[in-house]
Amino acid sequence: MLEAIDHIGVAVEDLDSAIESYSKQLGMPIQHRETVSEQGVEAVLLGVGESHVELLTPLGPDTPVGKYLAKRGPGIHHIAYRVDDIETEIEKLKAAGMKMIDESPRQGICDTKVAFVHPGSVGGVLTELVQPPNTH
Amino acid sequence: MLEAIDHIGVAVEDLDSAIESYSKQLGMPIQHRETVSEQGVEAVLLGVGESHVELLTPLGPDTPVGKYLAKRGPGIHHIAYRVDDIETEIEKLKAAGMKMIDESPRQGICDTKVAFVHPGSVGGVLTELVQPPNTH
Repeated sequence: MLEAIDHIGVAVEDLDSAIESYSKQLGMPIQHRETVSEQGVEAVLLGVGESHVELLTPLGPDTPVGKYLAKRGPGIHHIAYRVDDIETEIEKLKAAGMKMIDESPRQGICDTKVAFVHPGSVGGVLTELVQPPNTH
Repeated sequence: MLEAIDHIGVAVEDLDSAIESYSKQLGMPIQHRETVSEQGVEAVLLGVGESHVELLTPLGPDTPVGKYLAKRGPGIHHIAYRVDDIETEIEKLKAAGMKMIDESPRQGICDTKVAFVHPGSVGGVLTELVQPPNTH
């Protein structure tokens, strides 16, 4: 079961300018900053209710977010839903006919477990499952 | 203050297929369906935690969502944040230097008051403020 919107991933070209917009102008508190080499991004999490905005800037042009920016420009890159048990959720989505990019979970930001669903199974929306640390 | 992610607006070409994906495959309950003539869309709200996914299909090609689909294809169209007092929030954002599409609130889905922030002020992300009914 999807418990909440965990975060919205936003691809940005100028991380400092985006941090300024979201923290100073929109008033969201900065909660975390991390370079996720495996995913080729520097990421900043800001808080809003039970969710986050995740600003993503690519570490290079050949990364997934770098290619996204080159093709589409800055904007919303993906939506992530929080789940309690990611392995069970992956199996449920596969049984329901959805195509997974990740058939088993991998390491995400802040010690989460994450898995991406193929956008072709969700009407063009890149969709992520996120299991917070220490739930299973 | 932005209290929560109220909803993610998703532009879709095939509303029935998108409803199937979000309600049957991802398991989100359908909460509301409404034709919003002023915005040129048919909209369906599905629930996830304190937030919604808002599926949007255009009433015609010359509507904002129709033009978006023609240009970019289906995908995430906007992000909406819930606020307690939309007039105050609009003034705060203007004072912080953000450009508003709507300088005064207008009627949204489910008797909400809504106002859009110009995407140029939020790194390319079309951003909406939503005040639920009966808060002010």
